[in-house]
Amino acid sequence: MTTSSKTPLLDTIASPADLRQLMEADLAQVADELRTETISAVSVTGGHLGAGLGVVELTVALHYVFDTPRDRLIWDVGHQAYPHKILTGRRDRIRTLRRGGGLSGFTKRSESEYDPFGAAHSSTSISAGLGMAVANTLAGQKSNVVAVIGDGAMSAGMAYEAMNNAGAMHSRLIVILNDNEMSIAPPAGALSAYLARLVSGGAYRSVREAVKQLGRHLPRFVYDRARKTEEFARNFWAGGTMFEELGFYYVGPIDGHNLDHLLPVLKNVRDFKETGPILVHVVTQKGKGYGPAEASSDKYHGVNMFDVVTGKQVKPKPNAPLYTNVFADALVKAAQKDDKIVAITAAMPSGTGLDIFQKTFPERTFDVGIAEQHAVTFAAGLATEGFKPFCAIYSTFLQRGYDQIVHDVAIQNLPVRFAIDRAGLVGADGATHAGSFDISFLGILPNLVVMAAADEAELVHMVATAAAYDEGPIALRYPRGEGVGVEMPAEGEILEIGRGRILREGNMVAILSLGTRLAEVLKAAEDLAGYGVSTTVADARFAKPLDVELLLRLAANHEVLITIEEGSVGGFGSFVMQTLAEEGALDGRGARGLKVRSMVLPDRFLDHDKPEKLYAHAGLDAKGVVAKVLATLGRDADAVKVMIA
Amino acid sequence: MTTSSKTPLLDTIASPADLRQLMEADLAQVADELRTETISAVSVTGGHLGAGLGVVELTVALHYVFDTPRDRLIWDVGHQAYPHKILTGRRDRIRTLRRGGGLSGFTKRSESEYDPFGAAHSSTSISAGLGMAVANTLAGQKSNVVAVIGDGAMSAGMAYEAMNNAGAMHSRLIVILNDNEMSIAPPAGALSAYLARLVSGGAYRSVREAVKQLGRHLPRFVYDRARKTEEFARNFWAGGTMFEELGFYYVGPIDGHNLDHLLPVLKNVRDFKETGPILVHVVTQKGKGYGPAEASSDKYHGVNMFDVVTGKQVKPKPNAPLYTNVFADALVKAAQKDDKIVAITAAMPSGTGLDIFQKTFPERTFDVGIAEQHAVTFAAGLATEGFKPFCAIYSTFLQRGYDQIVHDVAIQNLPVRFAIDRAGLVGADGATHAGSFDISFLGILPNLVVMAAADEAELVHMVATAAAYDEGPIALRYPRGEGVGVEMPAEGEILEIGRGRILREGNMVAILSLGTRLAEVLKAAEDLAGYGVSTTVADARFAKPLDVELLLRLAANHEVLITIEEGSVGGFGSFVMQTLAEEGALDGRGARGLKVRSMVLPDRFLDHDKPEKLYAHAGLDAKGVVAKVLATLGRDADAVKVMIA
Repeated sequence: MTTSSKTPLLDTIASPADLRQLMEADLAQVADELRTETISAVSVTGGHLGAGLGVVELTVALHYVFDTPRDRLIWDVGHQAYPHKILTGRRDRIRTLRRGGGLSGFTKRSESEYDPFGAAHSSTSISAGLGMAVANTLAGQKSNVVAVIGDGAMSAGMAYEAMNNAGAMHSRLIVILNDNEMSIAPPAGALSAYLARLVSGGAYRSVREAVKQLGRHLPRFVYDRARKTEEFARNFWAGGTMFEELGFYYVGPIDGHNLDHLLPVLKNVRDFKETGPILVHVVTQKGKGYGPAEASSDKYHGVNMFDVVTGKQVKPKPNAPLYTNVFADALVKAAQKDDKIVAITAAMPSGTGLDIFQKTFPERTFDVGIAEQHAVTFAAGLATEGFKPFCAIYSTFLQRGYDQIVHDVAIQNLPVRFAIDRAGLVGADGATHAGSFDISFLGILPNLVVMAAADEAELVHMVATAAAYDEGPIALRYPRGEGVGVEMPAEGEILEIGRGRILREGNMVAILSLGTRLAEVLKAAEDLAGYGVSTTVADARFAKPLDVELLLRLAANHEVLITIEEGSVGGFGSFVMQTLAEEGALDGRGARGLKVRSMVLPDRFLDHDKPEKLYAHAGLDAKGVVAKVLATLGRDADAVKVMIA
Repeated sequence: MTTSSKTPLLDTIASPADLRQLMEADLAQVADELRTETISAVSVTGGHLGAGLGVVELTVALHYVFDTPRDRLIWDVGHQAYPHKILTGRRDRIRTLRRGGGLSGFTKRSESEYDPFGAAHSSTSISAGLGMAVANTLAGQKSNVVAVIGDGAMSAGMAYEAMNNAGAMHSRLIVILNDNEMSIAPPAGALSAYLARLVSGGAYRSVREAVKQLGRHLPRFVYDRARKTEEFARNFWAGGTMFEELGFYYVGPIDGHNLDHLLPVLKNVRDFKETGPILVHVVTQKGKGYGPAEASSDKYHGVNMFDVVTGKQVKPKPNAPLYTNVFADALVKAAQKDDKIVAITAAMPSGTGLDIFQKTFPERTFDVGIAEQHAVTFAAGLATEGFKPFCAIYSTFLQRGYDQIVHDVAIQNLPVRFAIDRAGLVGADGATHAGSFDISFLGILPNLVVMAAADEAELVHMVATAAAYDEGPIALRYPRGEGVGVEMPAEGEILEIGRGRILREGNMVAILSLGTRLAEVLKAAEDLAGYGVSTTVADARFAKPLDVELLLRLAANHEVLITIEEGSVGGFGSFVMQTLAEEGALDGRGARGLKVRSMVLPDRFLDHDKPEKLYAHAGLDAKGVVAKVLATLGRDADAVKVMIA
């Protein structure tokens, strides 16, 4: 018999049911093959690699021991779930990961019954799992719910809220703490130090010990007395006291790459008769089993396509500087002139560019962990003492700090600067990471100033403007990816608050752009000239406060006024319309009434795809603008022609 | 010498500096007088009483030991700060509490330099305090930062995020854990059980022991070794291991009503030389020192005016049922017919009416603690398993769960029902509690259905509608306070999604109302008839999806179309305008162009006042509507007359 497959055993597994037919002794080979397949797939697609490699054995063990999909298996964040996808019927599409129409880079309910809860933002799994566990209790069902969560994700308040609630309930929830001592960045906070002490104490717990741990649990009243005796206390010191105090049965730490340890412990946990939540502390190594990943400082957290043998990644050369880097450089410059400037990140130093800032100003950089709520109010506290905090958080994650923005920053009118990266569509990460709502959810708040950069030079000006503005909170948003290649200013210029600018003068149609759609709008204006349409193009710069004078001028001197933004309804376009209406500028004005339109993101969540395709899909590219203008002018036939072309 | 004052010592204290001139032996009397004054003031104003009475001694001790306002003293939530206000120069205005133009019921930066951070929402104090402590470090200042936080507030993820961050830093932050074993409701969660165990262990720690606790702290590496030895472990069992693990020095528990314990411990903490955060565990009794409060089940958490001698509260008889109760009764009825309905509250069972639901369905009611993030995703987890969760959260607190609504509910299109109480203006609680933004921040999300009840009968229908709707998430909002007195339906009717209703037909002006402003709009329409204005009144019912057919009909048949809602810009009015514009209904239509306006909350935070005054101030009462209509019709003189009348 000849087979050239590198993955002969994996080839026999169409679903976890097939896996469960194998002998335990075969599982190590399955894990090896699964690791090979994961590396091979990601070398083609790019994406998250290190996290998945760290849980290969855990993935095999969980699907072997538990009866998925009847037993619910929830992967926190979901970026470590590529091996899980391969084992759960999606191997044939694994090389479509993160591509348009292909598999999502995270877990997703609509993709598979083996994904009972979708993810992408961190720290949601315990809450969701507890909901399912309680549903089991209410429905009288005996199935298991397993949530796998990383140590980094444990720094989020949401995880703690869920633990605190679970610990007081009697539903059976199994939490696997996947402790790889590293989320995206080196971990921040006291909890990670605590976990390190748990692990360093005596290396791993043996299987016999780990299994005994569960048996040792006594009813609480006995436990409360016994804990005061010496020998009991001594036993407990090596355990996860903190988790015990939160009401969990704690088991571990155990070696997450050793199937001989994982399998018996997980079986024991599965068959444990007591009610109440269990935490299994598993120690893994990010990037495990792939040399280049193990050797890399970020353990190949997120990679481009790469060569499997060398590990060398294909890094496309950017045409223009990345917005993230432009922001970081501008902030460094501002901070060199103003020692009150400090910077805050919620576990994303490199994603936000603050790693660059940190190199120059280590003592003025604060990584607070995955803790957006705290990040915002911590910044507010700094602001009360006269510091100038730049709170750098992705648009989508800023949603986690919304109440703090309202209650601690806006109501108190404290000058916190929000640097909002990844605003708008984000491409391969999909709907969960899109920054679609910030213009609206910030723009509706009294006291806020909200800016959007049209290009990388504008971003430099807006950093300077935010640094100088000290009267209240101010936000600047900019997109993922690279700039448009404009000339960079030597120095940031302080912009007048609430003042837009005109880039091109026409007399028929006015397009008022907010943010980086400007380049496409300028292209569209060129194209429209070919249709005999004379177009004014303006950059609003500010979503709040609006440049009312500019609005009224545009409304008065054009037949058509169109706003465009990379955001949802209820944002800039809405503010413009409500203002124009209030000013009477939308009132019918005889034969030549103004036609006003707003171009916004569509009212649905857009799946992952290439940014260009997403923009086209949303109608927010030059072609979409041209078609919109022509349609608004009543030239429907021309508009259709444009869209078909 | 004759003095009739009941508070002779307190009368000599104009500010904490005066307090610090007194002998320690006098402080017990100061505390007694402060308690008397607090009870007397709240008996006149109503407001929060139990929490303030519990911290009278603590308030005196803190201002005596620390150099406020140079040392920063932050009260979490701030509703326990009435005694603090009395001691810090606001005694002369203490009987204006919560009244228009009077003192806020919470701490407020603009009110006093002794309020370094305003509050109202819980669990923000550690984050804000850490920001200040870090600012001290950066500025090379030696002043202290003290955050006082209740045990209930500790269940919030935000508090944990801040602790986790503080524990890994070296700034001096003093956290006073005010453990009264009861926030608003009996506490939920494992942490409160843990705190109870800490306290029950051996009653209070003596001063000598407490002071020794700090001294006992050893450098971490010694500690790590020593903790494994028996005697060390034994010592530690009575201490706050969990807080130690989070990097805090732990001192306590101590009796928060005993100044002989409080003063030396606080002095010791103040003078402690090590860097790093300290947690002082103080046990207090809510309502302490006032018999009727101590005897009451809610410890007089929030009270109306009352008789000081008897404690009997003046409860105004409502004219109509409270929205909260209408919601609860309707939900009970729905749940009697559908055993999949479950209800979730984040520590507000009585505020949301779920205490009523709980009486009938204890096993289907979940109080998850002050944990809105978890509440939302926990509900999402229940929804995945076919349950029908009603997540009942005040509008202002729902801001805490915003990312979870987007990421865990809306993107996955899970049928979670959001019952949003306290939507709109709330009166005496002021800006921090106003529910101004939910229409916008929910209405911009794909997949959401957003309803607003126009009266209590409509609320019954909307509960029925939400119970029946299973295609995705749905929200219903309703205000604080009592209904308008309409006849109640025997049974809730399932409304057609996205369909409004017309209540009055006219031909000149159309007013499209969302929510409870409807009654005022109907009054306005009557008044307008007197001005010769024929008015159509419609109730949109849905902010999303909009009733486009109704919108277009109203736009086509009237000169003026005005939307009104109890919410910010960027909400219902915006959605209507963007839709009308898109549909071409705002395009100039010859001589008789449509005039469209939206009436929304003003772009500033409104201080506490009587609801009627707030509505008048916002222009959202009948008078405001009449004036708006007349002004829009160009009858400015009439409009001015209306406003002056």
